[in-house]
Amino acid sequence: MEKYINPPKEQWKELLSRPVMDDSELFPIIQKIIQNVRNNGDKSLKEYALKFDNVELEQLLVTDDEFNEALLNIDTDLKMAIQQAAANIEKFHTEQLPRTIRIETMPGVECWQKSVPIQKVGLYIPGGTAPLFSTVLMLAIPARVAQCPEIVLCSPSDKDGKIHKAILFAARLCGINQIYKVGGAQAIAAMAYGTETIPKVDKIFGPGNQYVTAAKQWISSLGIAIDMPAGPSEVMVVVDETTPAPFAAADLLSQAEHGTDSQVMLLSNSVNKLEEIEKEVEQQLETLPRKEIASKALANSRFICLENFEQSIRFMNEYAPEHLILLVKEPKRFADRVTQAGSVFIGYYTPESAGDYASGTNHTLPTNGFARAYSGVNMDSFMKKITFQQISPQGLKNIGKTIEIMAENEQLLAHKNAVTIRLQELNTNDKK
Amino acid sequence: MEKYINPPKEQWKELLSRPVMDDSELFPIIQKIIQNVRNNGDKSLKEYALKFDNVELEQLLVTDDEFNEALLNIDTDLKMAIQQAAANIEKFHTEQLPRTIRIETMPGVECWQKSVPIQKVGLYIPGGTAPLFSTVLMLAIPARVAQCPEIVLCSPSDKDGKIHKAILFAARLCGINQIYKVGGAQAIAAMAYGTETIPKVDKIFGPGNQYVTAAKQWISSLGIAIDMPAGPSEVMVVVDETTPAPFAAADLLSQAEHGTDSQVMLLSNSVNKLEEIEKEVEQQLETLPRKEIASKALANSRFICLENFEQSIRFMNEYAPEHLILLVKEPKRFADRVTQAGSVFIGYYTPESAGDYASGTNHTLPTNGFARAYSGVNMDSFMKKITFQQISPQGLKNIGKTIEIMAENEQLLAHKNAVTIRLQELNTNDKK
Repeated sequence: MEKYINPPKEQWKELLSRPVMDDSELFPIIQKIIQNVRNNGDKSLKEYALKFDNVELEQLLVTDDEFNEALLNIDTDLKMAIQQAAANIEKFHTEQLPRTIRIETMPGVECWQKSVPIQKVGLYIPGGTAPLFSTVLMLAIPARVAQCPEIVLCSPSDKDGKIHKAILFAARLCGINQIYKVGGAQAIAAMAYGTETIPKVDKIFGPGNQYVTAAKQWISSLGIAIDMPAGPSEVMVVVDETTPAPFAAADLLSQAEHGTDSQVMLLSNSVNKLEEIEKEVEQQLETLPRKEIASKALANSRFICLENFEQSIRFMNEYAPEHLILLVKEPKRFADRVTQAGSVFIGYYTPESAGDYASGTNHTLPTNGFARAYSGVNMDSFMKKITFQQISPQGLKNIGKTIEIMAENEQLLAHKNAVTIRLQELNTNDKK
Repeated sequence: MEKYINPPKEQWKELLSRPVMDDSELFPIIQKIIQNVRNNGDKSLKEYALKFDNVELEQLLVTDDEFNEALLNIDTDLKMAIQQAAANIEKFHTEQLPRTIRIETMPGVECWQKSVPIQKVGLYIPGGTAPLFSTVLMLAIPARVAQCPEIVLCSPSDKDGKIHKAILFAARLCGINQIYKVGGAQAIAAMAYGTETIPKVDKIFGPGNQYVTAAKQWISSLGIAIDMPAGPSEVMVVVDETTPAPFAAADLLSQAEHGTDSQVMLLSNSVNKLEEIEKEVEQQLETLPRKEIASKALANSRFICLENFEQSIRFMNEYAPEHLILLVKEPKRFADRVTQAGSVFIGYYTPESAGDYASGTNHTLPTNGFARAYSGVNMDSFMKKITFQQISPQGLKNIGKTIEIMAENEQLLAHKNAVTIRLQELNTNDKK
């Protein structure tokens, strides 16, 4: 790890930088896959499964038998843990359900805003050695709370043509019945444009490898909605002389084990504590099965000491971390000043893994500084806000002149006329 | 206009289709402009102003003198109209300000979600013959209500190097002081990456020509936030035998005058009314200054009769119109069933132009069927939702096991360890 003690302001830009990601070189490959899926539908999906996942699939849809088998075979401990997490996630997201906003802006001019579920959503869950059932919960629960009428899930099967039982259990718990064995950019293409069996959806959610990410990026530039742009996962841990070093080290490592490109930042106001944590990280690292991945991520990590409180606040917000862990004596003093972060973990007993799995908050969060402009997945992600207005005859008399003058000055006379013609009719009626 | 009387379901796809827009052929041009702005900053902006807008600019920032001149010269009528509209827009958007959501999901596990303004936003206002001061209100008022600390506005000057007084007045009314004389894709590039005088922003809003649209699309694929994808403006007007034909005709024409690519749809349950409105449109058209534009748009318009109520509802939602005007006897019966639309106008005395200018709702709305997944501009557009959590020692004892089991099953042992190490410390303390 690199250490920086009270770095001068000129160095901040470098310290706050992320690795430059540009997946646009993948766009030609992606475009070819998308075109193939659009032209050849399910056939192309089966061909890709054979080519990339080494599996020959007879059908893409997971059958009831497969669901039932998964439900029978899942460990009771895991089942209960998933159920507990699901209950918390459901509680926190239900609480976010937006109310209808309604107001009379002028007498007779009533405006309101109503949230309506997106009708068809597609969730992508990556394959690989570890089954990301927690991501199923994080995407499917808010979709169900929003009452999205159609929820589709795509995930690549293993080479025996199976999807992990924990994924199937989590999906079924969330009321999802449409699971398709499709992975990679071809899954994104299938949900974006539809095939014989996979329905076209209105918005696509979920993490993935660089092909999945590039495919989402590409289709989003064509106007198909996605949850948010993606980048490597990251954490900033803020500590002071009171922080238990083992806690800070464990939190840094839980980020580092995600992948070699994980971003790990430590921000301390004490050089001693920084060095204590550094030693602790090295010790804990030895015990980890994913030691190799974590140590590569740590090689790029930055341990920064800023003694000035205001400077720390500024540094923290300028970085706009996906995860921000405040392991300090007065965490609320920091928390109240956060303007740019994905999710904030407050106090010694609030590890990031709580939010990753079970506390109730969502773990699909803006990386790569996107927290400057994006929220993590939340109820808004699964709903649209539609505005309505109803103007009474008297209301139109009150507001009509204003509209006419503005329309005329924007040289849109038909806009003006839509008001004038109504006001004339009202005046004629008044005279009767 | 094309007429379709009870078209069979097979024909719907064609009737619901939009012209295919693909601005990706502009991407190479856009990329060149963006690169030039990134490399040469203000110098390139002044060169583009000379090349495209035929104006030699000494400085890009609008001066106080220019503001003052505009404020002195604007007509009182227009001033008052803009002030009235601004007051209504502010009321409706203030009402939308999100509350903090807070809940204890389990004893000792507190989660909350707080809305925080995006720190730097950039607004783009197109130039041209008509000054779009209404769009200034629609973007700047919610930005100010959200309390975004930095609001930047770019708009091309006319060939005398001036920005229209109504735009300057509207901007000043909304508390905007940073206006730069830059237009086109180069304005989007400047706000996305910053120049010597124009600050880099976190999110870019506003309409524009195809170059502006393509530039926004391109930068959004690189992860820079934009308000929403753009397409030609559109309306669907729903009528029945009770509809005053002149009102329907005026509303159709107020859409048609926007541009030759405007989408105009009439949906009627009565053939007679449909034909009555058709005649009325032809008559009103003759009186319009923008007759030529409107008649080109009308040539592509679709007048559709569906006698079946449920079919009308389905057709209306499948089209997902930007603007939906319900000029029917029982408009609420339709309004309650709307699942896909940008903004809905209810009843005979609620023309679209009310929402375009002054009722309070926003006029920046999803076109091209994007209403399936996108909301119009609203308070969410200018704020991010950050989640927070704080877990007490007892809380971690309650939730810890769940996290440990889930992390272990996802093979993320460092995630598990971040909990285990804390629980061990708590148990040790308990025993003391």
